[in-house]
Amino acid sequence: MKNIIYLDNGATTKPDIKAIEYASAFITDNYFNPSATYHEGIQVANELKSAKETFKKVIGNNFEILFTSCGTESDNTAVFSYSKRGNIVTTLAEHSAIHAPFTHLKNQGLDVRFAKINEDGSVNIDSLLSLIDKNTTFVSVIHVNNETGAINDINKIAKLIKQINPSVIFHSDGVQAFMKIPYALSNDIDLYSVSAHKINALKGTGALFINKRIKNLKPLILGGGQENGLRSGTENVYGIKVFEYATKKHYETLVSDYNKVKQLKQLLLSNLNYDIFKVISSNNASPYVISLSAVGLKGEVLMHSLEEDGIIIGTGSACSSKNRHSRALKEAGHDENVLDGVIRISFSYESTEEEVKYLIEKLNLRAENLKRTIYKLQ
Amino acid sequence: MKNIIYLDNGATTKPDIKAIEYASAFITDNYFNPSATYHEGIQVANELKSAKETFKKVIGNNFEILFTSCGTESDNTAVFSYSKRGNIVTTLAEHSAIHAPFTHLKNQGLDVRFAKINEDGSVNIDSLLSLIDKNTTFVSVIHVNNETGAINDINKIAKLIKQINPSVIFHSDGVQAFMKIPYALSNDIDLYSVSAHKINALKGTGALFINKRIKNLKPLILGGGQENGLRSGTENVYGIKVFEYATKKHYETLVSDYNKVKQLKQLLLSNLNYDIFKVISSNNASPYVISLSAVGLKGEVLMHSLEEDGIIIGTGSACSSKNRHSRALKEAGHDENVLDGVIRISFSYESTEEEVKYLIEKLNLRAENLKRTIYKLQ
Repeated sequence: MKNIIYLDNGATTKPDIKAIEYASAFITDNYFNPSATYHEGIQVANELKSAKETFKKVIGNNFEILFTSCGTESDNTAVFSYSKRGNIVTTLAEHSAIHAPFTHLKNQGLDVRFAKINEDGSVNIDSLLSLIDKNTTFVSVIHVNNETGAINDINKIAKLIKQINPSVIFHSDGVQAFMKIPYALSNDIDLYSVSAHKINALKGTGALFINKRIKNLKPLILGGGQENGLRSGTENVYGIKVFEYATKKHYETLVSDYNKVKQLKQLLLSNLNYDIFKVISSNNASPYVISLSAVGLKGEVLMHSLEEDGIIIGTGSACSSKNRHSRALKEAGHDENVLDGVIRISFSYESTEEEVKYLIEKLNLRAENLKRTIYKLQ
Repeated sequence: MKNIIYLDNGATTKPDIKAIEYASAFITDNYFNPSATYHEGIQVANELKSAKETFKKVIGNNFEILFTSCGTESDNTAVFSYSKRGNIVTTLAEHSAIHAPFTHLKNQGLDVRFAKINEDGSVNIDSLLSLIDKNTTFVSVIHVNNETGAINDINKIAKLIKQINPSVIFHSDGVQAFMKIPYALSNDIDLYSVSAHKINALKGTGALFINKRIKNLKPLILGGGQENGLRSGTENVYGIKVFEYATKKHYETLVSDYNKVKQLKQLLLSNLNYDIFKVISSNNASPYVISLSAVGLKGEVLMHSLEEDGIIIGTGSACSSKNRHSRALKEAGHDENVLDGVIRISFSYESTEEEVKYLIEKLNLRAENLKRTIYKLQ
């Protein structure tokens, strides 16, 4: 396989080979069903328990851990559990795993409210708070925006919301935040979704962190009663153990990785050709996700031309890569010229200065060439 | 790890190391997001397409393949898609992945009907047909019962049901049938659920086969619109490719494996001590699943005593292993003495004559010893 520089880590990440090796025993030897009541089954069930303890250490002992098949399932479980009556509120810059279920409920006739967002993709807090009233039952605000890296201060937001209505259930999609930016969840956060394959573990595993205070979570999938009845289906033990290892490892180096990646972001932003590029991400966004626009060019074309240099970047959320324009960035007020040119560069903890220097060189060059071609054509 | 004889393959199976190796490239190299529009992403998406083609070859080109996270999710997707109105019908011997959603809908006020079952765990067809009327919208009948191996002739059953009401959507849980017993699905089957980890692939992957005729399947999980909008969330590419390989491999030797396992069943049943054991499974059941009762003893105690001989068997469905008695076997009319003594022996295609001979010896011996102990105590 040719050597590539992979800078679409917001879409998915390369699994950590050490995490794979660590968990491989759960394929080769400890493959038993954790619901089985013989010794080997109980041992596997204990391994699931110890994985939960690892997550509790990281996220806080006031949370229970529910394993799911992906971040999307975690988000759906949260939304559909608490959106039965009154009104529910979210932002216009959510991942489709939140946007789609909210839209579904709106189409079913529920009072569904979307808060406005700022230019960088963060939620407009005034707009959000203005939508909350005594009938609001559920609010979901993404922690780190998957397209721009904008960080919403969810602890502050949840607190302000609960000052208006203390009975609101507050959920946040933490898929792009977990094990990327340093934070501690306050006790105002009721539910928090994470995904394994965004942090060098495997596709097919996610989790929902559930504040112990929260009751009446409704399972999305009913059956054998696994996960205390909250998620039936034989647990993906292997995927969960890979996820546990990756989490433990990232947690140890979270701050130093963050600082390193922050420097990479600075390096990139200090060397862009600003005759072409506009930076959409704000300075205080997560450094792991950088949204740029090659204004007047097509982001998709720029992305493909960088493939020839062995560089892989994205054009936004992989999940909505089939749409022409980003829903969230459109809502953020960017005009068509900017929207057309959007690219997303999303770093890994393993990204290097050398890679970023190469990226800068090629990114500027490719964009300049594309621009010249267009001017010649006009 | 000590050498064990694993005979609880109905609960889960040992992953095929060749399938793991085959798919490992999707962890190490082709880890890209299949929704990404660059070359590497498209390649991974093509691998998902080719996996679907493999399943179509096996199950029939009149089916579409929907990948899910497990058999339970497949079952739930089927039930919740088509159970909105009228009445829905199933059997009293379904896996909890069907029984639980039906019970949930019953509690919500829907007209939910359960057909009686025969002593071997198969559905009583007369009872089933008597429940179908012009308002029936959805019927689910398990293909191979997970506790007794009883085979329901779903092609015949679906045909009879559609003679009464052609608009019924007919679903079958094929988790214990797929790649175990030889069959071809007729075009009367609308939906069919399968699970990867029951056929030497990985936990965390399942599929729902959807007759192309069927419209309006409702996704259980909403988001980025993966799987043609029918199942959002980044696809578990690795798990799917392992599943594909395992399916392909089993398909090649399906009939010879079946015949071999049938002989193992005969060997076992010809050598049991019938002063103690009662066979619940019928002669024409799937040979992969054998339900016995050590009448008057506790199945759980017998299971644990066999662990000392390095033999792992089950006491019924792993998913309901926490309940005292099997729901389905109780409904089948067995008395308490029989229900208490139930054990399940479930073979793998790799099970050997030598293993079964050892099982027979230890099974008879352990049961005889337990019986003696009880008589002494009385």
